[in-house]
Amino acid sequence: MKRIYLDHIAGTPLHPRAGAVMSSYLESGAANPQSLHADGQRARQIVDDARVKLAQLIHSRPEEIIFTSSGSEANNLALKGLALARHNGGDHIILSSIEHLSLIQAARSLEKTGFEATRVAVDSQGVVDPDDIERALTPRTSVVSVMLANSIVGTVEPIREIARICRSRGIRFHTDAVAAVGNIPVDVGALGVDSLSLAADQFYGPQGSAALFLRKGVKLVPLLDGGVQESGRRAGTENVPGIAGLGEAASVAMEDMEERGKRMRALRNRLIQELPQRLEHVVLTGHPESRLPHHASFCIRFVEGEGMLLHLDMQGIAVASGSACASKSLQASHVLLEMGIDHALAQGSLVFSMVDDITSGDIDYLLDVFPPIVEKLRKMSPLYFEYLENSR
Amino acid sequence: MKRIYLDHIAGTPLHPRAGAVMSSYLESGAANPQSLHADGQRARQIVDDARVKLAQLIHSRPEEIIFTSSGSEANNLALKGLALARHNGGDHIILSSIEHLSLIQAARSLEKTGFEATRVAVDSQGVVDPDDIERALTPRTSVVSVMLANSIVGTVEPIREIARICRSRGIRFHTDAVAAVGNIPVDVGALGVDSLSLAADQFYGPQGSAALFLRKGVKLVPLLDGGVQESGRRAGTENVPGIAGLGEAASVAMEDMEERGKRMRALRNRLIQELPQRLEHVVLTGHPESRLPHHASFCIRFVEGEGMLLHLDMQGIAVASGSACASKSLQASHVLLEMGIDHALAQGSLVFSMVDDITSGDIDYLLDVFPPIVEKLRKMSPLYFEYLENSR
Repeated sequence: MKRIYLDHIAGTPLHPRAGAVMSSYLESGAANPQSLHADGQRARQIVDDARVKLAQLIHSRPEEIIFTSSGSEANNLALKGLALARHNGGDHIILSSIEHLSLIQAARSLEKTGFEATRVAVDSQGVVDPDDIERALTPRTSVVSVMLANSIVGTVEPIREIARICRSRGIRFHTDAVAAVGNIPVDVGALGVDSLSLAADQFYGPQGSAALFLRKGVKLVPLLDGGVQESGRRAGTENVPGIAGLGEAASVAMEDMEERGKRMRALRNRLIQELPQRLEHVVLTGHPESRLPHHASFCIRFVEGEGMLLHLDMQGIAVASGSACASKSLQASHVLLEMGIDHALAQGSLVFSMVDDITSGDIDYLLDVFPPIVEKLRKMSPLYFEYLENSR
Repeated sequence: MKRIYLDHIAGTPLHPRAGAVMSSYLESGAANPQSLHADGQRARQIVDDARVKLAQLIHSRPEEIIFTSSGSEANNLALKGLALARHNGGDHIILSSIEHLSLIQAARSLEKTGFEATRVAVDSQGVVDPDDIERALTPRTSVVSVMLANSIVGTVEPIREIARICRSRGIRFHTDAVAAVGNIPVDVGALGVDSLSLAADQFYGPQGSAALFLRKGVKLVPLLDGGVQESGRRAGTENVPGIAGLGEAASVAMEDMEERGKRMRALRNRLIQELPQRLEHVVLTGHPESRLPHHASFCIRFVEGEGMLLHLDMQGIAVASGSACASKSLQASHVLLEMGIDHALAQGSLVFSMVDDITSGDIDYLLDVFPPIVEKLRKMSPLYFEYLENSR
């Protein structure tokens, strides 16, 4: 059985070009970019080249890139590092209530050390209102963090407006762009952000390789102390193969993103239109238009996400329910609850996120096999039974 | 020209078996170990298998392994995480004065937040005296950190004795074993340590993949907040290819370490014996016997390490001078200065650290080409001229 991988948000497969540069480096003998000999300088050149490629993708300067090991590390480094740098003496941070757990939890850690954190609510489509951010600002606010796109519901946030508000007040603004970079155009200058996190495994690069953009002149306190790597902002021997793969994936994204996005958007729109025609009690989550092109997410009433996921898996289709990072915990995603979705409905969360080998036939297959799975599972649901009784 | 790579301490080449498991995973489609579908469970199995293999290498339980992105991250996590956990309420930490920069700097960061740090001196061979550690203990001491082996001078420290002292006082003991694991036998139970850091690129595994052993029941405060990965102790999508490579490298080490160590020790001893016979003013650094088997380090008077390194590089030999991590900064290694080596001599530091393709012929070649390089460079040295004038 062909497997259909619809779990982009948990990580994309590696692009063959990214795999090739990684293999080529590893086979020819790894070396440390900090070593002065020829082997070391070759490794350094690979890291420098990748930095240039990634900078081109997000329209930054190469020296504004700090390589990290994951989007979560980049988010931790940004929020903690900017807050602890206390550039304006403030001890108040603001974040949206649907941020990734790496930011939600980093904010909790900061609260334990004396910072105050305000969580700004979102609307029913997961959109952060810039006016709400503005109203939450205080003279003590030093950092604001709002994601560029949400991986659970696909919504793309009005980052440019929020960044402008922060900039005009001299407040640092971080955006978690892990779900966005490499999939939609991202220009750090046009967005006006101070820092931005991204991860290679969200755009066909390798796991374990990610980065933080940090605008030139913006200071942060490092999380990892030690060596001179990343201009002293992140110690530890560079993950040269991972960085090389990230750089190549950035190049591929520059070439493929527009065309790939167009193709996926069409298939995604088909899924969003046709699934509710084939199945009752389907609710689209997130914004209908302002959303990632490869992303379709739903809550399906009277059925649990995990059951649907496992039955789809048996039919050869890999999808996510709620957050990939928290999926094992079987809790409803905080993102859905914060959008005002009731707890029972949030349990029926499914995220279909496409990768670049998706075909129209795959969507046909999904639309064929999925509704019977839901109907079968609903027969076992006491809530569905109750609903049928009441609607008689 | 054949290249001879004598810079193990900056990172080993990847073992073909480690490369093969990484390629196999990457080519068959990466997935997130936290995903519930079959692709995710396959990735999880790879991570679980690697955890078991690494646990076997260091004689720990699999659940005592926290995968990280570098030895520096593991060291930061251990020192900051254990100190901030304040298991006994103490705010005093102790470390040796020749620890890796990731620990030296992490201690400085802790000092900025109110901790007190004591740096214990070493003797002229880089050995930490357990009695000195005992004398430095106070009722407020909560964490002690002493490395298992030093990468600049090769000295292996009396960790078992130091661990025993700490354990008897209920003080946490961390050891940086990055230079040791995979090269000499390491048994966390026999050593009696609470935590131990290691890095794959020190034993023929990939860069960007490392780990912290944390004894069951020992609490630490995470550095990277967010998801449930590594039992909540280190958030971020797992670097599955890197972890797979680390696991395989651990297996290879279990098979090869003894034989490889024996072969290298013989070649290393030849270098230590014969180099001073061929060249004047050569001083062995570190302990003559209690040292890493692949490691020969010297300070050579009246000449600078960087010049020797670059001339050896032109002859096809890659070596290190001082710390790989600080080599770009052109400062004498703090390790050498702390051992009482004078600043001028410390400038002449060279570290020859062998990897597994080393041959007897390579050592012959090194012993042939190296003395003329030094003699040539000395002719340009004012200090050497002065020495010759004075010794007439």
